Amino acid sequence: MARTTILQRPLSSRCGANLFTRSTSASSRTFSVVSRPQDEPKKERVVILGSGWAGYGVARTLDPKKYERIVVSPRSYFVFTPLLASTAVGTLEFRAVLEPIRRLGVKFHQGWADDIDFTNKTIRVEANASDEMSDRPVTPPPVLGIKGSSLAEPSLQLPSRRREKGEMFEVGYDKLVVAVGAYSQTFGIEGVRKHAHFLRDIGDARRIRLRVLSLFEQCSYPDSETGLSEKDKSDLLHFAIVGGGPTGIEFAAELHDLIHEDLKKMYPDLVKYVSITVYDVAKKILPMFDQALARYAMDTFARQGIKVETEKHLDRIREDESGNGTLRIKVRELGDEEKGAGLVVWSTGLMQNPMVEKLKGKRFKIPGGPAGTGRGPLVRLLGESRTGGIVTDGNMRAKAYNGGSEKGDSSMVLPDVFVVGDCATVEDQKGLPNTAQVASQQANYLAQGLNKGALLGKPFKFRNLGTLTYVGGWKAIHQGEGNDLRGWAAWVVWRTAYLTKSMSVRNKLMVPVHWLVTWLFGRDISRF
Amino acid sequence: MARTTILQRPLSSRCGANLFTRSTSASSRTFSVVSRPQDEPKKERVVILGSGWAGYGVARTLDPKKYERIVVSPRSYFVFTPLLASTAVGTLEFRAVLEPIRRLGVKFHQGWADDIDFTNKTIRVEANASDEMSDRPVTPPPVLGIKGSSLAEPSLQLPSRRREKGEMFEVGYDKLVVAVGAYSQTFGIEGVRKHAHFLRDIGDARRIRLRVLSLFEQCSYPDSETGLSEKDKSDLLHFAIVGGGPTGIEFAAELHDLIHEDLKKMYPDLVKYVSITVYDVAKKILPMFDQALARYAMDTFARQGIKVETEKHLDRIREDESGNGTLRIKVRELGDEEKGAGLVVWSTGLMQNPMVEKLKGKRFKIPGGPAGTGRGPLVRLLGESRTGGIVTDGNMRAKAYNGGSEKGDSSMVLPDVFVVGDCATVEDQKGLPNTAQVASQQANYLAQGLNKGALLGKPFKFRNLGTLTYVGGWKAIHQGEGNDLRGWAAWVVWRTAYLTKSMSVRNKLMVPVHWLVTWLFGRDISRF
Repeated sequence: MARTTILQRPLSSRCGANLFTRSTSASSRTFSVVSRPQDEPKKERVVILGSGWAGYGVARTLDPKKYERIVVSPRSYFVFTPLLASTAVGTLEFRAVLEPIRRLGVKFHQGWADDIDFTNKTIRVEANASDEMSDRPVTPPPVLGIKGSSLAEPSLQLPSRRREKGEMFEVGYDKLVVAVGAYSQTFGIEGVRKHAHFLRDIGDARRIRLRVLSLFEQCSYPDSETGLSEKDKSDLLHFAIVGGGPTGIEFAAELHDLIHEDLKKMYPDLVKYVSITVYDVAKKILPMFDQALARYAMDTFARQGIKVETEKHLDRIREDESGNGTLRIKVRELGDEEKGAGLVVWSTGLMQNPMVEKLKGKRFKIPGGPAGTGRGPLVRLLGESRTGGIVTDGNMRAKAYNGGSEKGDSSMVLPDVFVVGDCATVEDQKGLPNTAQVASQQANYLAQGLNKGALLGKPFKFRNLGTLTYVGGWKAIHQGEGNDLRGWAAWVVWRTAYLTKSMSVRNKLMVPVHWLVTWLFGRDISRF
Repeated sequence: MARTTILQRPLSSRCGANLFTRSTSASSRTFSVVSRPQDEPKKERVVILGSGWAGYGVARTLDPKKYERIVVSPRSYFVFTPLLASTAVGTLEFRAVLEPIRRLGVKFHQGWADDIDFTNKTIRVEANASDEMSDRPVTPPPVLGIKGSSLAEPSLQLPSRRREKGEMFEVGYDKLVVAVGAYSQTFGIEGVRKHAHFLRDIGDARRIRLRVLSLFEQCSYPDSETGLSEKDKSDLLHFAIVGGGPTGIEFAAELHDLIHEDLKKMYPDLVKYVSITVYDVAKKILPMFDQALARYAMDTFARQGIKVETEKHLDRIREDESGNGTLRIKVRELGDEEKGAGLVVWSTGLMQNPMVEKLKGKRFKIPGGPAGTGRGPLVRLLGESRTGGIVTDGNMRAKAYNGGSEKGDSSMVLPDVFVVGDCATVEDQKGLPNTAQVASQQANYLAQGLNKGALLGKPFKFRNLGTLTYVGGWKAIHQGEGNDLRGWAAWVVWRTAYLTKSMSVRNKLMVPVHWLVTWLFGRDISRF
């Protein structure tokens, strides 16, 4: 069946015949060029890959009067990640932390970037119209704007979703912003992908929520219709969190609140079986906080009965033979005895998006030259060895190096290709954390620079605005420059800080409404 | 593996050895009796099967100081069905139309009633802890409190959900309220169960919502990467609604609002392909409204471009060969040409819950007699021939007849068994519609009677409080006793009426908040 794929041509592309290649895929395709509507002024087209903090940030800040904005992402929304844990426990409605991308007035293609032709400035996109990202099962974590097609590491495959390759189409760009983010890192540990829940996308939050409520329901049946012993209930109502960073700590704190403020009333007989444990391989949790604040978090957790197990390595998660859904966790330091748990939340470690690996492997010519065949020698993107990210200059422009020479020799800037967020490593500023704050500042820096047309001004510099983490029971910790806070005061900062960032007016209104309603009536516990 | 099932024993049960039967199922079970906590005063136990308008209504009105209330339902929530269509289009948040059953402070067992032993006053319940009702695929419609285990009609099986039989347990009762509601009736039409969406539970609304948004996304990819022709897009963006009752009409109206108030801005190029059609077998839609009001609805629809096709019989729905998700609808009166559609919503007809059929087939003895073996001759529940419902007396008590005699001969009241809602047919009041209003009034009547201990007072009498239907564009129709309204005034009644009924304070607050937010910012269009 012959299908026509219409190529969207960027303004500056050199109309060369090489743009009209025929695809080698089974279904033969023909390309044709769409002309721009007459009334639309000629604007440079900026294609943004990804809709996380970096991609969404660029898309919303870029001036639509100066640029045509196209976002490519497998998700149709931006997730306000710092409040994701709140949605998993029902303090907030899921929708209150989502911002639909189309609301920005951008053009949007839902799909994964499959490959990029840097020489001819086109992106191949795999469509994702009917697939609901959030309806995927627990395991596959590719939550951010791009998808690698041939992955070396088996654990990165998408095992439990039988996904046929979607339709492919191409999108041309004048400027490209790569903001595809990172994946969850499971370190190849057995059973993590299969049995643990991540907490990165709204679907993860929804699945965690249903699981928590189901576990209480399961243990609540008239005494023991399922033959559940006291031990079984203690196992099923043990909530294990792996990773003592802000995500894991906040989830543990919110879960504790849910159980002790709401579920306790509904299931008074079950509270005695509940336990929450945070495991971390490091000596202390919350490494980005200073000793006193981390200590405060630990003390708060101790009072709440949340266990923190530091210097513990998870070796395996498996499902129990009993068939009642209990998971068994093997912790290296605890010997052969496995801990039971009903839910394991995995909140540790990031790895590069496989698409970034794929891009770093490509050899290509810089755009330009006769008939758009490119100019100069073959080059490659410059990767950073420790993080695996793409190296950028201080203006967030991707760097490349002569593909024939030693890496780093004669590195140069790849024109019109920018990298921001978790997949970027700014030269001279290595070691920036993979946080929303960094991604968001890079996005603002880049978009404002493009708006001014003055990218070559001052290089990007991260300004630490402080770190906030909720620790439960209306208490938080806040570390800023010289103004550390803890307890209720920090909690007020925590709540108000979230209302000022990257949120639509709609959600700025809805989030406090949900907080008020939760405060008045308790958390919502409908399972659906 | 031996499992212990602990039987909950009702207050009045006659401790007979016959309660301690061994189950014949593969896993052998032993029963034991739970004693009541010491501090709890002895209260009669009322078990309510179902959590729809009838079951939830009884549970919330029954006085907890006088009765121990136990609700058995496969769903953990009550759905405020009149606003379900609003959630399907994003005017309201899903959660705003749900009321968690446990919030009533009742005991709750999530599961299907599998069988009832009227002689010994026990119910066998099949657990449903881990199953999310709403995550079921499109097809199976058993949305209400009970599940038939062996169904004669093949279309009533649960084909696409591979569900293993859950754990079984028994619950004893002093008084029983059967409020299991009805199922959707598909009249055996080919493809309905497989391809049509119902609109009865929150999961249905969520699936419809995702489908509508996916269809727009699918048609929005850069011109025709999927090879979609103009015709294909017209087919995919044709929304067919089968059934011209209030549910179908309100969904059509809300869908029109969504498309023309919100999606139009996001997908301006696609609106020209959109069409909405309501099919009905009758001569007019909205049969419960008088001619003038139904005419007004028709005229409003005509102005909005919603087609109404009356006197049309659907013969088949099938999926198109193209693989792009188009459905083909065969309408008897339109000959062999099939209409294309992207979504078919099925909102016509109810049939009895198969559990009701099963109960009507049982022969049993009235409770009492020596050692709880029952007394008198074998009897059966009295069914109503036209509706298939269980006949009740004016006090909503189930009626039975001597199983050996002709039906209707020597009919008697079955003590302590009440039937309310769609599965009940009150003698002397046959022909009441299967509406929320009827179910709700029956529930109130019964619960208030039980609270007063004066059931044998005035028999139940339905009081028609008027009928309301939204017809789109901020217009509604309202038919009351001598005060018909149409247009914006009726819309105001429509909106305010819904805030006074069966809703928690939480949702009384949240529903107007969502309306305000939708009015200010448009409907939410995140797909998740």
